[in-house]
Amino acid sequence: MINIGVDVGGTTIKMAFIDDEGKMLDKWAIATNTIDNGKHIADDISSSILKKMKQLSLDPSTVRGVGLGAPGFINMDTGFIYQAVNIGWKNYALKDALEQSIGLPVVIDNDANIAALGEMWLGAGQGAKNLICVTLGTGVGGGIICDGEILHGVSGMAGEIGHITVMPKDGAPCNCGKSGCLETVSSATGIRRMALDALDYNDSESILRDLFEEKGDISAEDVFNCAAKKDPLSSTVAEKAAYYLGFALGALAVTINPEKIVIGGGVSHAGETLITPLTKYFKRFALPRVFDACTIDIATLGNNAGVIGAAWLSKTKLEQKHTA
Amino acid sequence: MINIGVDVGGTTIKMAFIDDEGKMLDKWAIATNTIDNGKHIADDISSSILKKMKQLSLDPSTVRGVGLGAPGFINMDTGFIYQAVNIGWKNYALKDALEQSIGLPVVIDNDANIAALGEMWLGAGQGAKNLICVTLGTGVGGGIICDGEILHGVSGMAGEIGHITVMPKDGAPCNCGKSGCLETVSSATGIRRMALDALDYNDSESILRDLFEEKGDISAEDVFNCAAKKDPLSSTVAEKAAYYLGFALGALAVTINPEKIVIGGGVSHAGETLITPLTKYFKRFALPRVFDACTIDIATLGNNAGVIGAAWLSKTKLEQKHTA
Repeated sequence: MINIGVDVGGTTIKMAFIDDEGKMLDKWAIATNTIDNGKHIADDISSSILKKMKQLSLDPSTVRGVGLGAPGFINMDTGFIYQAVNIGWKNYALKDALEQSIGLPVVIDNDANIAALGEMWLGAGQGAKNLICVTLGTGVGGGIICDGEILHGVSGMAGEIGHITVMPKDGAPCNCGKSGCLETVSSATGIRRMALDALDYNDSESILRDLFEEKGDISAEDVFNCAAKKDPLSSTVAEKAAYYLGFALGALAVTINPEKIVIGGGVSHAGETLITPLTKYFKRFALPRVFDACTIDIATLGNNAGVIGAAWLSKTKLEQKHTA
Repeated sequence: MINIGVDVGGTTIKMAFIDDEGKMLDKWAIATNTIDNGKHIADDISSSILKKMKQLSLDPSTVRGVGLGAPGFINMDTGFIYQAVNIGWKNYALKDALEQSIGLPVVIDNDANIAALGEMWLGAGQGAKNLICVTLGTGVGGGIICDGEILHGVSGMAGEIGHITVMPKDGAPCNCGKSGCLETVSSATGIRRMALDALDYNDSESILRDLFEEKGDISAEDVFNCAAKKDPLSSTVAEKAAYYLGFALGALAVTINPEKIVIGGGVSHAGETLITPLTKYFKRFALPRVFDACTIDIATLGNNAGVIGAAWLSKTKLEQKHTA
């Protein structure tokens, strides 16, 4: 059977046809139309998919259904979106709207969770049934898989690991209203902020400072690039980001006992410059039996993780309905 | 159907007959015979149960099977005990031995997990499918239930929340080899240690000091009793234990998004003297939507939690086999 994976973002909607073996038959993207609080999106998705099916001469009876990921607070059971700020949806029955429009069964989860499912199915987490996925981007997102299933919790908030407090005292304020959250120190935003602070409080020579004076700004990527070149100031900042991430992942690991931790998002491009200190601190904060059972890897699916995980949702959650 | 719940401890083995509606028909206990590395225990349990069934004239066809909890590292799928130090078992196929001896199907999990299942079924967690149980005793144990199922993790180590690091710097050494674990500050042992330190570093008048001078020692219970009487030194110690527990539970709650947190073990007898500051700190470290969805309660089943949770294992895990 063929599954349709849809990954709704604030600017583009990615889509793909993926068969049950994980082979991607086609993928494409359309712009996200946020006009009228996003009420045209379901129809946009539906007409784009139907057009593509026609182009490829896909027999509709070979298509199982649609898996979809969206940002925001979602009730997975009902496919109801409480709120998706970037899109404009509020108290919106997305699943019902899309099912009506496309005439296929639809299953929905949030974007961090589908990315985790994608990495579990075909990416760095392949084969693992107990898995923690961390996305280090503008914020810090998380998807936690136990025994092959995403944790949702009682109100869909499970996996909000960016808001684990790692600096209980003197932490920077977080968008969530708390302070000292993991997101304030290990996201791209947090790393940039710590680096700017370090440049401010410090007069030492640094190639990061040269870069800052040249460009007028720096990014988390710059920090890791300079750290890879052994710049002491950049290394201190990178080490700090890795320390707090290792601290949070240590706590998570003694709780979840995962086989794999997959690190994705822009900051993960730092590769070994991040993974080496992260592994050192993770070992310090996890129990030996927990550390020994777990490997930390960089995500491999990049921007495709979402559509792949969404297709996995279709494959696994719509299977029973289809065969029933 | 009737389920047999067995809770194996280092000194006694508790047993009970509990029907599918949760009614306890009988309960009793026998001594734990640790001679010969515990190899007589399976036969002891079996003959004690068979004798009791005869006494009560129970029809064997009405008995579904045996759920059993034991301390230590257990493979739940196979019922194999890697190690249970207090009992003497090491690489022991307990499930096979007991099934052979008693002629009924057996299902096994560890003692912290069955206590959590007991509280979920008939105790403070009743009705909740997402639940964190914390046992504050000599150590700090945990059982985590997501979507009605205990988390085991890849090597059975999930829920070891006593070993979440809460004092990354200057923490006291823990039995696990790390330092600054939750267990070092929020267990009965940790609270006693902090109180003795406080008495040592401080000359202030305190009814806790009077008690110490009278008895030559103090317990965690003494600390909470004195804190309830507004003794400042005791209140500081109780507040510290609650602070670190709130910090760890905040991290767990943004990860798991539980409906209920159930606090058991000796320290939980402190009641509101513990729950009031704990709730304050838990709120500080959890996201508002996570805090709002969750209540913290004291465990209600006491020493019966284990046999009740073990009976739940029989009821839910042996059901399919029996009807198949």
